[in-house]
Amino acid sequence: MNIAKMKEDKPLILISNDDGFEAKGIRELVRFLRPLGQLVVMAPDGPRSGMSCAITSDRPVTYSQFANEEGFSAYKCSGTPVDCIKLASTEILCRQPDLIIGGINHGDNSAINVHYSGTMGIVIEGCLRGIPSIGFSLCDHAADADFSPLERPICQIVSHVWQCGLPESVCLNVNFPLAASFKGIRVCRQARGRWMNEWEKRQRPPHGKDYFWLTGNFVGEDMQEDTDRWALKEGYVAVTPISIDMTASAAMEELKERISE
Amino acid sequence: MNIAKMKEDKPLILISNDDGFEAKGIRELVRFLRPLGQLVVMAPDGPRSGMSCAITSDRPVTYSQFANEEGFSAYKCSGTPVDCIKLASTEILCRQPDLIIGGINHGDNSAINVHYSGTMGIVIEGCLRGIPSIGFSLCDHAADADFSPLERPICQIVSHVWQCGLPESVCLNVNFPLAASFKGIRVCRQARGRWMNEWEKRQRPPHGKDYFWLTGNFVGEDMQEDTDRWALKEGYVAVTPISIDMTASAAMEELKERISE
Repeated sequence: MNIAKMKEDKPLILISNDDGFEAKGIRELVRFLRPLGQLVVMAPDGPRSGMSCAITSDRPVTYSQFANEEGFSAYKCSGTPVDCIKLASTEILCRQPDLIIGGINHGDNSAINVHYSGTMGIVIEGCLRGIPSIGFSLCDHAADADFSPLERPICQIVSHVWQCGLPESVCLNVNFPLAASFKGIRVCRQARGRWMNEWEKRQRPPHGKDYFWLTGNFVGEDMQEDTDRWALKEGYVAVTPISIDMTASAAMEELKERISE
Repeated sequence: MNIAKMKEDKPLILISNDDGFEAKGIRELVRFLRPLGQLVVMAPDGPRSGMSCAITSDRPVTYSQFANEEGFSAYKCSGTPVDCIKLASTEILCRQPDLIIGGINHGDNSAINVHYSGTMGIVIEGCLRGIPSIGFSLCDHAADADFSPLERPICQIVSHVWQCGLPESVCLNVNFPLAASFKGIRVCRQARGRWMNEWEKRQRPPHGKDYFWLTGNFVGEDMQEDTDRWALKEGYVAVTPISIDMTASAAMEELKERISE
């Protein structure tokens, strides 16, 4: 990893997640990053998985502080992951943060899951605010997952992005395979794929109405060597650069010809 | 608009929105599209603005039917806009729909608002399922907004997409300016911009805790002639093609050099 120049001050890092402030993933992330910068956590007050870039518009949001130490303060918020970033930015921080970090998520956010992920909602919100932003996810849903192998690569990626920045309108979706060590770091594209068998139907006893739990299995036929899915399967850390400009540039000319009038 | 071939059967069209099943926008959309195809509505049972691609994973989801006529059936659902598409696809429809339509949204979904929009969540979900998908939004938040000028261009765009399809992994974000008639239809790119002054702080009486309402104003400095914001300001219908592949392709080589190891 090529670090061009060395910044001397420590960065101000805003951290959030979608598993809630008590999750092991965010606590481990804070432990890893404490030596690197001044940390402010604003995390949801409970689990908010699958919240994407959702914002709370139908009711007010509140927050409260739960930690205040040298170089580290932490708050919990009643809103979504994106609300956390918006609220911390205007109500807590005295200046724009240098970095915004989401995670560490308990579970895989590779491939098309970037669209549903609350962790990546944080990161997209950070990027929309013009701040270098990174999401970290481990392919393990367990509440007591072992995050310790992630410490070194996370510190390496965060230090690099702090020193060198990211291209404009680009943020990073970083996924770690479930492994004790990694083969290396690969920059990848988002794999295609789809979710199947998404609902588990139940019935209220004794003869009541159906209700449906969201579940399902991910089918990813797109396992080419340049994808994040392939990198994870092979034991690499998968770094997928994500653009907040969703314009389908390659389709513009065709659609201009077909649709404009 | 160039229609290459004519399909003879009527399409099966799945419709949803994020303003809820009772909103005028979805009722007008159904009225416009009734002559064009067989319609199935699965819409949230109340407002779900700003829900993005959120899915409901922490509680079960239910639905019930509220209309069943020749060529038109309608259901309301306790979940998010994306839940509506997922649930209708597996529990209601006997085959894959030919088109998925979101809207008509009460309010502007141009520029970066694509990330927060529940209407565009529907459309992105449709595109992830491989189905040609379109979101329609009117730049007017009023509950009784006048959607009648939209009838002709909406039917024109839906007929065209039904006949000719859309490029792979591409869906459409269509926004209408608040006007009695439109200058034409422009295919645009997503404008940059940001939200400012996003929170209105209130206090619980008499001396209680602060709470925060999400509000704000959109600042769009990016008004170049190829943007959706420019098209809307000039009185055009803005058609922004959106890619569900969020990979920042233009940044791949630089990041591979900087980050891979």
